[in-house]
Amino acid sequence: MINPQFDSIGKQFVGHYYKTFDSDRAQLGALYASNSMLTFENEQFQGAEAIQKKLTSLPFNQVQHQIVTTDCQPNPSNNGVLVLVTGTLIVDGGATPLKYAQSFHIVPSPGNTGYFCLNDMFRLNYG
Amino acid sequence: MINPQFDSIGKQFVGHYYKTFDSDRAQLGALYASNSMLTFENEQFQGAEAIQKKLTSLPFNQVQHQIVTTDCQPNPSNNGVLVLVTGTLIVDGGATPLKYAQSFHIVPSPGNTGYFCLNDMFRLNYG
Repeated sequence: MINPQFDSIGKQFVGHYYKTFDSDRAQLGALYASNSMLTFENEQFQGAEAIQKKLTSLPFNQVQHQIVTTDCQPNPSNNGVLVLVTGTLIVDGGATPLKYAQSFHIVPSPGNTGYFCLNDMFRLNYG
Repeated sequence: MINPQFDSIGKQFVGHYYKTFDSDRAQLGALYASNSMLTFENEQFQGAEAIQKKLTSLPFNQVQHQIVTTDCQPNPSNNGVLVLVTGTLIVDGGATPLKYAQSFHIVPSPGNTGYFCLNDMFRLNYG
């Protein structure tokens, strides 16, 4: 079954995700579940708690994500949405933005009360 | 159910995909199915035939994909594998490689005879 609103769901999720990341990383855990997976550069994490711990421990004080492209496709297997983001990161007000690519697989929450991130893979493309 | 071989399946698929792309693009259709989706820059295509037509019509004679990173995660919903690739493209022997990011969602074929690409999103990051 294809989720007819896949594009707006994906874009809304990503917008909310980066807004949360850039303003209060400690809240990111709420966007993951116990079976969620994060690949961050060469490291892998499983479960909302481990993922939040990793994201809050990243060694910078301030970060700003600037999205360049957001592409979404439906996942017919589970009513989920696949998202590929490319963008730039400004860390602690640095003058040189870092390019990144990130893919998300977001799926309906149990009880269908919203969406959470099941798969998250993040890579910096050193420009 | 998590596919225990997700990492080798994803990497094998991607290696085969780019080898086929760089040697004989006309064979790429065999790696997609009727419900496959391709987002290529700002365009969307559905079905192996439309996807192959797009990929074979790209305006270059020779292309060489050089993978920089390949990250894989299992999709517990369907025994599939999610892959995020970052790399560079050399087009017609040009001196300036183009950076790209590409995400794949590969799933078992009907009859479990192999894997095909269900979701494919491709973006150039103009460096």
